[in-house]
Amino acid sequence: VAQRLEKFKTTIFTQMSILGNKHGAINLGQGFPNFDGPDFIKEAAIQAIKDGKNQYARAFGAPELNSAVASRFHQDTGLVIDPEREVTVTCGCTEAIAAAMLGLINPGDEVILFAPFYDSYEATLSMAGAKVKCITLRPPGFDIPLDELKAAVSSETRAILMNTPHNPTGKMFTREELEAIASLCIENDVIVFSDEVYDKLDFEMDHICIASLPGMYERTVTMNSLGKTFSLTGWKIGWAVAPPHLTWGIRQAHSYLTFATSTPMQAAAVAALEAPESYYTELKRDYSEKKEILVKGLKEVGFEVFPSNGTYFVVVDHTPFGFGDDVAFCEYLIKEVGVVAIPTSVFYLNPEEGKNLVRFAFCKDEETLRSAIERMKLKL
Amino acid sequence: VAQRLEKFKTTIFTQMSILGNKHGAINLGQGFPNFDGPDFIKEAAIQAIKDGKNQYARAFGAPELNSAVASRFHQDTGLVIDPEREVTVTCGCTEAIAAAMLGLINPGDEVILFAPFYDSYEATLSMAGAKVKCITLRPPGFDIPLDELKAAVSSETRAILMNTPHNPTGKMFTREELEAIASLCIENDVIVFSDEVYDKLDFEMDHICIASLPGMYERTVTMNSLGKTFSLTGWKIGWAVAPPHLTWGIRQAHSYLTFATSTPMQAAAVAALEAPESYYTELKRDYSEKKEILVKGLKEVGFEVFPSNGTYFVVVDHTPFGFGDDVAFCEYLIKEVGVVAIPTSVFYLNPEEGKNLVRFAFCKDEETLRSAIERMKLKL
Ligand SMILES: CSCCC(=O)C(=O)O
Ligand SMILES: CSCCC(=O)C(=O)O
Repeated sequence: VAQRLEKFKTTIFTQMSILGNKHGAINLGQGFPNFDGPDFIKEAAIQAIKDGKNQYARAFGAPELNSAVASRFHQDTGLVIDPEREVTVTCGCTEAIAAAMLGLINPGDEVILFAPFYDSYEATLSMAGAKVKCITLRPPGFDIPLDELKAAVSSETRAILMNTPHNPTGKMFTREELEAIASLCIENDVIVFSDEVYDKLDFEMDHICIASLPGMYERTVTMNSLGKTFSLTGWKIGWAVAPPHLTWGIRQAHSYLTFATSTPMQAAAVAALEAPESYYTELKRDYSEKKEILVKGLKEVGFEVFPSNGTYFVVVDHTPFGFGDDVAFCEYLIKEVGVVAIPTSVFYLNPEEGKNLVRFAFCKDEETLRSAIERMKLKL
Repeated sequence: VAQRLEKFKTTIFTQMSILGNKHGAINLGQGFPNFDGPDFIKEAAIQAIKDGKNQYARAFGAPELNSAVASRFHQDTGLVIDPEREVTVTCGCTEAIAAAMLGLINPGDEVILFAPFYDSYEATLSMAGAKVKCITLRPPGFDIPLDELKAAVSSETRAILMNTPHNPTGKMFTREELEAIASLCIENDVIVFSDEVYDKLDFEMDHICIASLPGMYERTVTMNSLGKTFSLTGWKIGWAVAPPHLTWGIRQAHSYLTFATSTPMQAAAVAALEAPESYYTELKRDYSEKKEILVKGLKEVGFEVFPSNGTYFVVVDHTPFGFGDDVAFCEYLIKEVGVVAIPTSVFYLNPEEGKNLVRFAFCKDEETLRSAIERMKLKL
């Protein structure tokens, strides 16, 4: 294995899902719904396949999808962008992240990351040869320690890679925090990579796209995808929105990482992005109910549960149960209790910082959530 | 844009397809069929979507697809491999190439390439920081200059990246050539990346998978895909077959480049790989007819046509028409004649070497091929 990937292991999501399957555990680990996406989107994919939309799409996205992404971005932010020059369709947001790092970051460039972070951030930054600085978000609120951030950002900083609503914690960056990031970036000529795949799962406050703040669009890559919002995580349609000078680098990397994204799935993504507002309202109502079930249950089981304002995840402190660390706890949970959660220590540069925390996902039907709670009440 | 991608332009396939569309030209450039893939595969995709196979697949491939790839590899080579440890499913062969380079090649590693080469090879090697050495295959036969190859390979060499049947030339590596490569690799402990996406389009001789030669499997990454064999280039399902120690690096890079590949399309790929032998026989018969039409036509137009033994491409020398170089010729061809071809100079480290050559694709219905020939006869 090449040095750039030497320190990384099989992704924790894969590890835990495989171990969970082996032990017949209920999977509240990896973030995929155990219910299906909406029929109208599936129908659109089926129609596209039948209509013969089965050859290469345009490398940076089928024109209709680039337009649909631009329209949605306009609805979300009020900004008018050019779908032909500012949108790149990718194989999921994971590829958008990789393409942004490999397309825009040079070896030695300093990039600031918030821990806990989605594991692909560190791995793709390593592939790009970036020098990573890490700011830790701490429980209970996982708020940004603005003083630490200010001390970290300098003219040496090339980029900040952020994620709101935040996986794994469910933290949503507040307007004040986003404004603080924005002013640091403008002052120090820093670009922002913003992973906003959970933007439509904003329960306790409204999601704010950092690109919509004054002076920020021109220095921001906003990344999103279909999977979480439309319960179709297996379709792997993502995108990056960025001004032309940043889009250029992303497209270059994308051209040689995957070239193009599944044509019939792109046609279906257009239908998805045309969903009426009521789709999102209902999605949020459903997820609020699930969240309530899980949070209440986890508290009854005896965890300290930290507030999750967005995403379909919630983080808890497992120390009341007396396990050494998060990995030991999660292994016991799978093998002896029959429930999969995700240990968070892999999401920190310093694994020690995450050793008390584990993540549960509530993108599951109510019965599954209730059974998992039952198992934990019984056996933990 | 990051330095690693600075020298690269928008892929020539994208450039030419966009220019061709603008001028209403017949597209014999980018290699995608203008007819649809088989119904039985489309039906399998539709069924998978309906059946709710719409969430994340296992990162390194849906178990059924890994098994189907292993079976097909066994049929093709006689080798028995472990689908769980030696197969990685990727977003097209393009991603397999990127994952292999980023997962297995370190900065400064020497990699040998044959020119003309598919453009992503050079770009992904640049992303990996490889030191590239290039051996040029020259018309009319595009045979490997074995003396040059022998002189190039040394203990400094980490890998050879090859492609047979060869895009753009249609050259197929002979048993003698493959054995020469194999013995150099074994002698110098070199690994082979072999892109064999056109393996089922072997017209004039049988394709030989280099991994099947004695001592080679353990040092070879064989890459393939669904697109060319099943006329579904837009589905973006590819894979890499390699021994466990090489698979590990590929999977690591893949996990962080795209994580996983479209779940319903993987289910359909299983159906595709279970196609009876008659499917391949018919495919080859159809393509032989198309090839004959195109080759005969191009000769009548006045090109010097080089023999193509495999792939759905044929390379010609355009100098009889008195244009300065391949790019000028292709631009005239699109704008004034109404036909898209691919200039080959971008497929060489030294563009001069390709300036007389352009590539035509015959993965088009007969009427399209005949109309393109008509246009060229009339206006060239
Ligand atoms: C890409 S696999 C992991 C899915 C996910 O986003 C998560 O569980 O955090
Ligand atoms: C990935 S786009 C190019 C398609 C192709 O393989 C070719 O035309 O050579």
